[in-house]
Amino acid sequence: MQTISRQIEEGTLRTGERVPSVRQISQQEHVSVSTVLQAYGLLESMGYIEARPQSGYYVRRRPQAVRPLPQISAPRKQPCWVGISELMENARRASLMPGVFPLGCPYPAPELLPLKQLNKILVSLAHGEDARAQGISPPPGSLELRRQIARRSFDWDGDLSPEEVVITCGATEALQLALLAVTEPGDLVAIESPAYCGSLLLLENLGRKAVEIASHPQNGICLDVLEEAIKKNPLKACIVSPNFSNPTGSCMPDEAKKKLVELLTSRSIPLIEDDAYGDLYFGEQRPRKAKAFDTEGMVLLCSTFSKAVAPSYRIGWIAAGLFQKRIEMLQMTSTMAVPKLLQMVLAEFITSASYDRHIRRLRSALSLQSQQMMAALYRYFPDEARITRPAGGSFLWVELPAKVDSLKLTESALRHGISISPGPMFSAKQRYRNYIRIGSGLPWTEATEKAAATVGKLIGVS
Amino acid sequence: MQTISRQIEEGTLRTGERVPSVRQISQQEHVSVSTVLQAYGLLESMGYIEARPQSGYYVRRRPQAVRPLPQISAPRKQPCWVGISELMENARRASLMPGVFPLGCPYPAPELLPLKQLNKILVSLAHGEDARAQGISPPPGSLELRRQIARRSFDWDGDLSPEEVVITCGATEALQLALLAVTEPGDLVAIESPAYCGSLLLLENLGRKAVEIASHPQNGICLDVLEEAIKKNPLKACIVSPNFSNPTGSCMPDEAKKKLVELLTSRSIPLIEDDAYGDLYFGEQRPRKAKAFDTEGMVLLCSTFSKAVAPSYRIGWIAAGLFQKRIEMLQMTSTMAVPKLLQMVLAEFITSASYDRHIRRLRSALSLQSQQMMAALYRYFPDEARITRPAGGSFLWVELPAKVDSLKLTESALRHGISISPGPMFSAKQRYRNYIRIGSGLPWTEATEKAAATVGKLIGVS
Repeated sequence: MQTISRQIEEGTLRTGERVPSVRQISQQEHVSVSTVLQAYGLLESMGYIEARPQSGYYVRRRPQAVRPLPQISAPRKQPCWVGISELMENARRASLMPGVFPLGCPYPAPELLPLKQLNKILVSLAHGEDARAQGISPPPGSLELRRQIARRSFDWDGDLSPEEVVITCGATEALQLALLAVTEPGDLVAIESPAYCGSLLLLENLGRKAVEIASHPQNGICLDVLEEAIKKNPLKACIVSPNFSNPTGSCMPDEAKKKLVELLTSRSIPLIEDDAYGDLYFGEQRPRKAKAFDTEGMVLLCSTFSKAVAPSYRIGWIAAGLFQKRIEMLQMTSTMAVPKLLQMVLAEFITSASYDRHIRRLRSALSLQSQQMMAALYRYFPDEARITRPAGGSFLWVELPAKVDSLKLTESALRHGISISPGPMFSAKQRYRNYIRIGSGLPWTEATEKAAATVGKLIGVS
Repeated sequence: MQTISRQIEEGTLRTGERVPSVRQISQQEHVSVSTVLQAYGLLESMGYIEARPQSGYYVRRRPQAVRPLPQISAPRKQPCWVGISELMENARRASLMPGVFPLGCPYPAPELLPLKQLNKILVSLAHGEDARAQGISPPPGSLELRRQIARRSFDWDGDLSPEEVVITCGATEALQLALLAVTEPGDLVAIESPAYCGSLLLLENLGRKAVEIASHPQNGICLDVLEEAIKKNPLKACIVSPNFSNPTGSCMPDEAKKKLVELLTSRSIPLIEDDAYGDLYFGEQRPRKAKAFDTEGMVLLCSTFSKAVAPSYRIGWIAAGLFQKRIEMLQMTSTMAVPKLLQMVLAEFITSASYDRHIRRLRSALSLQSQQMMAALYRYFPDEARITRPAGGSFLWVELPAKVDSLKLTESALRHGISISPGPMFSAKQRYRNYIRIGSGLPWTEATEKAAATVGKLIGVS
């Protein structure tokens, strides 16, 4: 349904044109009629469409001005050490506080995940006391799970073989192994800006310097700025999340991904591709991963089942191209292995058709929730607020009026029992002071609405 | 029962003295009469005792010469880079080959572990679809599990509080976090020699230099040599496994542990204590951990449930003293969290009395297996072979005649479908060329006997 707002913005659907009927969308996207009605109601409240009695929905003749996106970022071009651990510590402490409403949390809610199905498989394997579940599974991890990952790589033109995959403890271990494999302490690493706070903290923890690259809130890292940075600095790696970058939700056009890989490969700079949210696209078409354009083995694709299937399992994977053997050796002293039983459960679940059904439903739910959260923020946040319109993932990036201090806002929200993620967490030197990340992983409830309204009020008085 | 051989060696039990009766030992150690009979048979075959009809067992009047232990190691005193990854890669490849008999493997066999009991808890938690098992449990990990670890720390005079413990992905992650927390690349790290190959590979992977310290096959690291090394080198950390060091099985006397902690603390050198096998003592008395003598928070105790409970769960922990906060921050980008469900299962199991029963049985089984393997090696290996007599753990360290090349021996054993661990894996510069590690974690079977005999034969022709 987000496709429709995009088509309107891009002019594919023009003023006065009829948008697809509710029944049509319902059949096409395998969602209920009431879900579509709800989404169309949101598009209406956002000024994209209007209902005409007995006739359907039409693109507004005089659409309300479509709200501008947050600005293209303009980080400092100098390499710098990262300093965000204190902010991360605050965020962790808030996440451990009981009763706090996680409005900043980027994870899809547990109730959207297939816990029952996983538990069923878990119980049957445990009852069988499957001998294969005992002992440890040293790198590269369970063959069965690697087979399933390889099989599904055809969906994004990855064509991986099981031998190219290493199972890791979440994308977190994958990212750390990747960075250890291709860089040394003190090395310069290019990273989109704003960037996933976990990747920035990784640079800080391992003593690598960041070269932050300007990024577009919808199309991701600016290739011309990256090219300039490559010319100026001896970069040893580049960390990018081409599909639904956390926190902006930007998605690089496939053509740009290809160029990114070519640009880096031509300079022998490994690309660490963070694909944590890549499976959670809202549209019809699965966006490709940068790895699909990797002809030389220079892309280290890091992915995970934590977002779409089972956060608590802590199972991710890496396809590291030329660096595969090095990754396996590094994993021997990083975690040695990932719990075998959980790998087996996951492999069995992914093999089944219920996995596909689950993912379709999850994508559709997240798409709706993203619209709902967006509409709420438009309602409750000041008019000057600029909000991203991601085509996937489970978070929104919000630029607030320049005078707002998001660190103070985060503190006062926490005093009201609500956690949000302040912008400075997503920058090496704690920039984006007037930005926040809002999660859209929770199914819409009154509590969510109330939390959004409260934060809106707090912004008003700040 | 191993206590008896030690008491004879030390002269506490003297020639001609009667050793405790079979019934006495059976009651004292909670093992069956037949188990004690089997163990006494082994002591008899090793020449320690003799049976007198109608009367019992006595220390031999003219005991066969008790075999000498392997020599005290004498590694080079110069700091050096570690280079064992190729050997580790070979070992990993061998461990993945189907049908190979794992004679070198140091892990207690799966059939000795409480899989059924764990599965029962797992199934009940999964059936209940316990909401607590969802989501992730960021550092420091599950409070319930940390409580249990703290509670049991009283057994070794640790008196830890739950707040001092961080749950990790096995001792492997604990060791890596510890080393990252207290050292930088290029730093010098003292380590006993021979040392656990995983710790050496960690130094190699993270680019730290090793200063190898001479160690006694029974009493562990030589404190005078360590003191000398401290004076000569700017050491940034020291890695020791005071209880049942892998591969020698040495156990430092408690008094020496205290001195070790005092020596290092007085020079502000953090001690990374690897306690992977500490719970697997054979005797009556649980040896203390070095952490018990830590008054200043300078000991980073790394432990695990992989050896005594569930290798496949990959759950360990670290009590890092002054470095606790740093460890938690490092874990955020190392694995972020350990699977919550498995932490809950473990916490529930450890709370129960069946845990204590299990550990008692396991220790008794490992003690017997150690004796059985030792006796077999005396039978099948050349007379010049020197074998350790560990008081805990699940491996033996064997010094073979100087002409034997254990790397070649390992290759030819593998051609016979048997894997052993060559000595060079346990040394930064691949010394201990005529040593091997033999595992004693497997219950005694004909296959084990045959494998030991085959390796004995191969040594004979090498």
